[in-house]
Amino acid sequence: MFSFQIIKKDKKTRARLGCIETPHGVIHTPAFLPVATQATIKALGPDDLEKIGIEGILANTYHLHLRPGEAIVAKIGGLHKFMNWPKPIMTDSGGFQVFSLGFGRDHQVGKIAKIFPGQRTDFEDLKQPKLVKISEDGVSFCSHLDGQKILLTPEKSIAIQEKLGADIIVAFDECTSPLASYKYTKESLARTHRWAVRCLKTKKRDDQALFGIIQGGIWKDLRLESADFIESLPFAGICVGGSLGKSKKDIFKILNWVIPRLQKPKPRHLLGIGQMEDIVKSVACGIDLFDCVEPTRLARHGVLLTKKGKLNLLLSRYKEDKNPPIKNCSCYTCRNFSRAYLHHLFKAKELLAYRLATIHNLYFMNEFMKEVRKAIQENKFDKIF
Amino acid sequence: MFSFQIIKKDKKTRARLGCIETPHGVIHTPAFLPVATQATIKALGPDDLEKIGIEGILANTYHLHLRPGEAIVAKIGGLHKFMNWPKPIMTDSGGFQVFSLGFGRDHQVGKIAKIFPGQRTDFEDLKQPKLVKISEDGVSFCSHLDGQKILLTPEKSIAIQEKLGADIIVAFDECTSPLASYKYTKESLARTHRWAVRCLKTKKRDDQALFGIIQGGIWKDLRLESADFIESLPFAGICVGGSLGKSKKDIFKILNWVIPRLQKPKPRHLLGIGQMEDIVKSVACGIDLFDCVEPTRLARHGVLLTKKGKLNLLLSRYKEDKNPPIKNCSCYTCRNFSRAYLHHLFKAKELLAYRLATIHNLYFMNEFMKEVRKAIQENKFDKIF
Repeated sequence: MFSFQIIKKDKKTRARLGCIETPHGVIHTPAFLPVATQATIKALGPDDLEKIGIEGILANTYHLHLRPGEAIVAKIGGLHKFMNWPKPIMTDSGGFQVFSLGFGRDHQVGKIAKIFPGQRTDFEDLKQPKLVKISEDGVSFCSHLDGQKILLTPEKSIAIQEKLGADIIVAFDECTSPLASYKYTKESLARTHRWAVRCLKTKKRDDQALFGIIQGGIWKDLRLESADFIESLPFAGICVGGSLGKSKKDIFKILNWVIPRLQKPKPRHLLGIGQMEDIVKSVACGIDLFDCVEPTRLARHGVLLTKKGKLNLLLSRYKEDKNPPIKNCSCYTCRNFSRAYLHHLFKAKELLAYRLATIHNLYFMNEFMKEVRKAIQENKFDKIF
Repeated sequence: MFSFQIIKKDKKTRARLGCIETPHGVIHTPAFLPVATQATIKALGPDDLEKIGIEGILANTYHLHLRPGEAIVAKIGGLHKFMNWPKPIMTDSGGFQVFSLGFGRDHQVGKIAKIFPGQRTDFEDLKQPKLVKISEDGVSFCSHLDGQKILLTPEKSIAIQEKLGADIIVAFDECTSPLASYKYTKESLARTHRWAVRCLKTKKRDDQALFGIIQGGIWKDLRLESADFIESLPFAGICVGGSLGKSKKDIFKILNWVIPRLQKPKPRHLLGIGQMEDIVKSVACGIDLFDCVEPTRLARHGVLLTKKGKLNLLLSRYKEDKNPPIKNCSCYTCRNFSRAYLHHLFKAKELLAYRLATIHNLYFMNEFMKEVRKAIQENKFDKIF
């Protein structure tokens, strides 16, 4: 039902070309999975995704558990049927929300802590985040929708993901804060490892591939310990989770510790990273799969991705610009509309704006991943790296 | 460049089957034109319209004059190019906004005055609305976007519409309030007639068809005078404008006065009316063209049109409903998604909700108009009427 084949390995880097087979079709790797948080890629229909050439998407367990609830999704026939998306789907475990609604919120940081002047960084000794309670059993949240108390445990996360019915599901973990202390991270990691075992034990469906998650923050010994432990368990694939340090350089430092320890032929997913330059560097480190909300979120703010940087459609310089949004782009949006029209739609807050910009950004990411794969195939990856 | 052919006349009513030819293709009548206020049918792209089978749309001169401005639309190559919509476009004249930002706002009424208990109806003697100034020359508004003063005259309305470049353009008029007095309506009508002559005189482009507008409120003598006068001028088509009375019955009373006076083979457009039952009754009175924001506006509020009434997707009874949104409907939305999914998208305020519901409502209207035409063709119109 699930297989991962490594088609080719780059000679100069750890980049590799692969193919993941799932019950709903294949994903050619390295691949970027757009994020369908609430069972829809924001502003797009499955018809749009199909035309762009998207092979797989990632949906969020926490959000779908809250609304509409996994029981309803299961009743309609699972996520594929619910969304009318026939191709591969991955769900995360809810572990990232342990962080983003917990320490991430308290520390005012993302999975990479960009510290701004004057920001507090003395949270290291906090034992528990404010709105989230973490125990050996699992994690209790207050729903961001209605404040209702939600308990997620490894068993519950897997049960939810089995009801949602994605092709690839992920073990429940704690994503620690980049500002957490060594002591906290070490204790959390040991718990995450115990949770990993519980996830494998509770899993029932054999048509879903379960991926484990490596944590360990920015500490080499913890990351190596985690890599070895997660690799030793019968997971179908491996995710590398945050926290990923205090600058982007830390991501690659961590990947260069972790990836060489992974010797089994399993796909490797770097959770939540999706900027072009980070993708290329991570592929060079041996990552096969990515997901990130950035391309779709930027689109909704009028920002188009290009090889040469970002283009902000809201700038008044595009008001009368006859040119296609991005020259030489073959997406539906760039083939059919001018910068002036997109500028107008964004200024007028017309709904079509969000769809057209999102189509471009996902097409761009998809074409970019094709180029990465082609470069590996043709032994030219070091030229784009 | 522009022609109107009457293909068949119904024997029992004034309904007729026709075909309007424009430089951008044909519109089979009776037809419903969805409204693209700001040069986009809200939530849809031209690809969606094409698939639904829409033959023509109506865009708003007032809104496009304010933003992005006709100069920019012209610079990009006209509305068709700007929107990437290759089929017929009609623009209104801005006359309806004289009403909706003027007396309509002051009187708190639409073009049909639904009077609620306690509502003031003693506005008859008001000489000028508060935010709009009407003179022989034209009308000055305050922009609803930034308060900037806008002057529309017959000459300016036509100049704007020539720059926008629609296939069918409309003479500038005053749409009077259903609460206006006979005296006011009579004076306004005389001015609207003088404006009609000025519109014809100032028109330069010969690839656009100019339609005149019959006004006269709810007074038979004024409506007949207007029908005769507008019919006597070399307009390519005739619009029947509001005010249309104090109840829906008044619409058909007015149409039954006016239409029999129109003997020339010109297409007749009833401005701003688009409910199914009103369309059928108006077609029976001899109307060929309709436009209305209602199907698209209802869609954005989660309301789907059906033959048996409206279906509100937000109702909790649809939360777990596996059924297609509307049974036996062949639109993209109904073929591919469940009520439960649409309910979820609306509850989660996901952008896809608006697109999917709009696709259904416009498909529904388009199929409904096909049925109306088929019924006339097959001498069965009296059965749906």
